[in-house]
Amino acid sequence: MPQSQDPTNLSILLERGVVEIFPSTDADNLGDRIQKSDRPLRIKLGIDPTRPDLHLGHTVALRKLRQFQDAGHKAVLIIGDFTAQIGDPTGRSEARPRLSPDDISYNAATYLEQAKKILDFSTEGQLEVHFNSEWLSSTTLQDVIGLLSYVTVGQMLEKEQFGSRYEKGIPVYLHEFVYPLIQGYDSVAIKADVELGGTDQKFNIGKGRDLQFNARPPSSILPGFSVDMTLEKLNEGLDKFKPKLMRGYDGPIQFGLLLPLLVGLDGVQKMSKSLGNYVGLTDEPLSMYSKLEKVPDTLVDKYFELLTDIDLATLPENPRAKQKQLALAIVSQYHSPEVALQAQHDAEQIVLAGNTTDLGDIPEFELSQINFPAPLHYLVKASGLCKSNSEAQSQIKNGAVKLDGEKLGDRTFASIDELSGKVLQVGKKKFLRLIS
Amino acid sequence: MPQSQDPTNLSILLERGVVEIFPSTDADNLGDRIQKSDRPLRIKLGIDPTRPDLHLGHTVALRKLRQFQDAGHKAVLIIGDFTAQIGDPTGRSEARPRLSPDDISYNAATYLEQAKKILDFSTEGQLEVHFNSEWLSSTTLQDVIGLLSYVTVGQMLEKEQFGSRYEKGIPVYLHEFVYPLIQGYDSVAIKADVELGGTDQKFNIGKGRDLQFNARPPSSILPGFSVDMTLEKLNEGLDKFKPKLMRGYDGPIQFGLLLPLLVGLDGVQKMSKSLGNYVGLTDEPLSMYSKLEKVPDTLVDKYFELLTDIDLATLPENPRAKQKQLALAIVSQYHSPEVALQAQHDAEQIVLAGNTTDLGDIPEFELSQINFPAPLHYLVKASGLCKSNSEAQSQIKNGAVKLDGEKLGDRTFASIDELSGKVLQVGKKKFLRLIS
Repeated sequence: MPQSQDPTNLSILLERGVVEIFPSTDADNLGDRIQKSDRPLRIKLGIDPTRPDLHLGHTVALRKLRQFQDAGHKAVLIIGDFTAQIGDPTGRSEARPRLSPDDISYNAATYLEQAKKILDFSTEGQLEVHFNSEWLSSTTLQDVIGLLSYVTVGQMLEKEQFGSRYEKGIPVYLHEFVYPLIQGYDSVAIKADVELGGTDQKFNIGKGRDLQFNARPPSSILPGFSVDMTLEKLNEGLDKFKPKLMRGYDGPIQFGLLLPLLVGLDGVQKMSKSLGNYVGLTDEPLSMYSKLEKVPDTLVDKYFELLTDIDLATLPENPRAKQKQLALAIVSQYHSPEVALQAQHDAEQIVLAGNTTDLGDIPEFELSQINFPAPLHYLVKASGLCKSNSEAQSQIKNGAVKLDGEKLGDRTFASIDELSGKVLQVGKKKFLRLIS
Repeated sequence: MPQSQDPTNLSILLERGVVEIFPSTDADNLGDRIQKSDRPLRIKLGIDPTRPDLHLGHTVALRKLRQFQDAGHKAVLIIGDFTAQIGDPTGRSEARPRLSPDDISYNAATYLEQAKKILDFSTEGQLEVHFNSEWLSSTTLQDVIGLLSYVTVGQMLEKEQFGSRYEKGIPVYLHEFVYPLIQGYDSVAIKADVELGGTDQKFNIGKGRDLQFNARPPSSILPGFSVDMTLEKLNEGLDKFKPKLMRGYDGPIQFGLLLPLLVGLDGVQKMSKSLGNYVGLTDEPLSMYSKLEKVPDTLVDKYFELLTDIDLATLPENPRAKQKQLALAIVSQYHSPEVALQAQHDAEQIVLAGNTTDLGDIPEFELSQINFPAPLHYLVKASGLCKSNSEAQSQIKNGAVKLDGEKLGDRTFASIDELSGKVLQVGKKKFLRLIS
C-alpha cells in the first residue's frame, strides 16, 4: 500500500470532503490505524436497494470508497436486501417500501452496474459485495433479544429522528429501533474497520461501534464470575448468550467517516430524484452538461471538492469558467473527455441559436402522450414542433431535426427509453426536452 | 358443559376472587362468550419455570383455572422455557435469571407435580401443557420486526414498570419490551379465549388481545389496496408480512381475567418465598396448620374467598373459630381431612403444653449445622434441647421426644428433607422448629 504511506494522499483520504471522522483522539484515530495496519482495512458502505437509478449525490460516498481502494484497502458493499424485503410492516414509512426479491435483485444489479463507473471492480481483492440476508435470514429471536439488550430507550430517543417525533406525540414504532441495530450487526458480520455514510448516519454507525465493542472478549474478569475460571471459559460463558455473530468476535472496532449530503441543483435541498434537482449517472451527455454548467455559484466549489479529483487551488476565478470546467470534468468522468467536449459544443450551439440563454428554461414534452413504436416525423408533429406530418418529414430531409445536437434521418423509436431526457430541436430556434 | 349453563356456577366463575375481567361491555363480555360458545373455551395460564416450589399465592390462579375445568373448559398451561433459557442477557434483572435446560425441565416437572393437587389432570381433554419454545425457537428476525411493528414506544412507556423508570432516568433496555410481546404471541399460538393473571399482568394480557386482533383477517378493504382484489388475495398479501403464527389466524380474541396478588402471612406484602411470609404446598401438615391458624383477621375472609370453596355466607363470626376453620380447610385440601384434624390436635397439644401461645414464636434450629445421616439422639443434643448425648438417649427412651407431635424411638435420619419444617419437642416445654 505505498499510497497510504504517502502523507499527501492520506490527507486527501481523511480530509477532502470529510465532515467528521470519529473517534478522533491522539490515542485512537484513523490515520494511525491506516499507517500501523499490516493488512488492508475493510471499508464498509451500506446500500439501500430501493433505488435503481444513481445520481451524483450517491457518488460522494462511492468516490471516497474508491480513494480507499486506490490506497490499497478493501471496499465492502452491503446490499440491505433483508430489510428491503420486509420493508416497514406498518406500511407507513415511504423510506421503507417493501420490495419483492425480483425487484431487489434488479435494483442491486443496476446499482452495481452504475457503481462500476466509480469503484475499482477489476483489481483482485479490492471489492467484496454482500447481501445482508446472508446472515440476517438465520437470525433468531434469541439473537434479537441479545442485540436489543445493548441499548436503552433513552439512547434510542437521542437519535433526532426518533426523539423529536416522540416529543411531539408522533408514534415511534418499536420495529424502527431494530434497523439501526441491524446496520450495526452488519458491521460485526463483515468486521468493518471504517463505515462510510452521510452525516445523518452518525447514530447508526455509532451503534455498529458499540456492538463490535461488546462482541470483543472482556479484558478482565467481570464481577459475578469466580476468579478461578480461566479467561477462555469466562469468554465461552459470556459468548454463549451473545447474538450469533458476536460470539468469538475477533474483528476491529470501526471508525465512522461522515460525508456531507450533496445539495441539489436548486441550491437548497438534498439532491434527490423525487425533488427533480439531480443529475443522474446515466444522463445523456448534453443533458448532464447543461444541468451542471448552471450549478449555483454557492455550490460550485463544494461540487469540485466532492465530485472531482481536481486540485481546488487550481480553479479559475471567473464563475462562468468555473461552472464550465465543472460540467466538462463530470461529463468526462461518466462518459469521456471527447463526448464531454462535444456536449459543451452542442450546448453552446443551442444557446447561441435560441433566444433562451438557459437550457433549463426550454419547454418539456411528455413522451407518455404518444404510442410506441413511433417514427421520428410523428414525434416531431405530435410534439408540436411542426404543424403537419409532411412539414416534419421535409424538415427531417433538410437535416434541420436534431436529437441532443445530432442530425437525424427519419427512423423509428422502439420505446420511451431511447428518447427520455434528450433535447429535440427543429431549426435553430425550436427546442423541446423530452421527458417520461 | 352443564355446569357452565348454571347461573350460580357462572357467577362463581366470573366473580369469586376476580378483580377485573376485560373487556366487559354489553356487546362483548365473557359471560356471553361462555354461554354462546359451542366448544370448550381455552383458558391460558403462563408459568414461569424459575420457581420449583409453589405456595398458596400460586394457587389463586390455579384454583380459578380448575373452576373453568369443572365448568367444562380446557386449561392451557404455557411454560415459559424459551425466555427462561435466555434470561436477561444483561444479567441485571433478578426476576429473569438464566436457567439451564436441565433446571427448566426439573422446575417444570416439579411445578406440574404440585399443580396436580389443584388442576384436573385426569379428565381427558381438560388440560394442555405447552413449552413456548415449541414455537419461539423457530421465530425469525422477520417475525420479530413484524411483532414489534404493532406497538409504539409511547404505548410501552404506559406500562407503569417501564414508564416510571424512564421518567426517573433509570435505563429501560429495549429487549425488555420484547417479553410482553412474546407473552402476547403465546396467546396467538394457543388461540386463547381467556388469559388468567395477577393484576400486574393487565398490560401484557392486553398485548395478547392486540396481537390476536391484528392477526385476524381485515373485515374491509384497507386503504392502499385496489378494490378489485378479492378479499382472499388481500388477506394473503397482508398475511405474508405478518409474524408466522399470525398468518391465517382464525382463533378468538382473548378476555383478560385478573386475580389479586395474595397478601402473605405478615398481612402486608405479597406472599413470596423470599419474604418468608408464605405457606408452601408441600409444607408438613402441622407447619401448614399452625401458620394458617394465625392468619391476620384482616386477611382471613380474603383467604377463604381465594383459597377455599367454602360459601362465605356460612363462616363463623368468632375470629378464632374462623382462623381454625380456614387452617383445617386448607390442610384438608393439600393433605386430607384426617391429617388436618390430626394437625389441629397436635397444634392444640403443643400450645397447651407450652408457655408459648403461638407456634410462630418458637425458636428455630438450622439443620445445615449437622452432618447427615444423623441419629435422633445426636440431633436432640446438637440442637441444644438436651445437654448431653446420654440425656438425649434417656429422654427418647422415656417417650418424651416428639416430632410434629408424634413420639419417636431413636432412629437415624438420612437427610435434611426428612426433618425440614417439622417441630422437634422434648418434654412439654422445649420446642424447636427445624429449618433448612
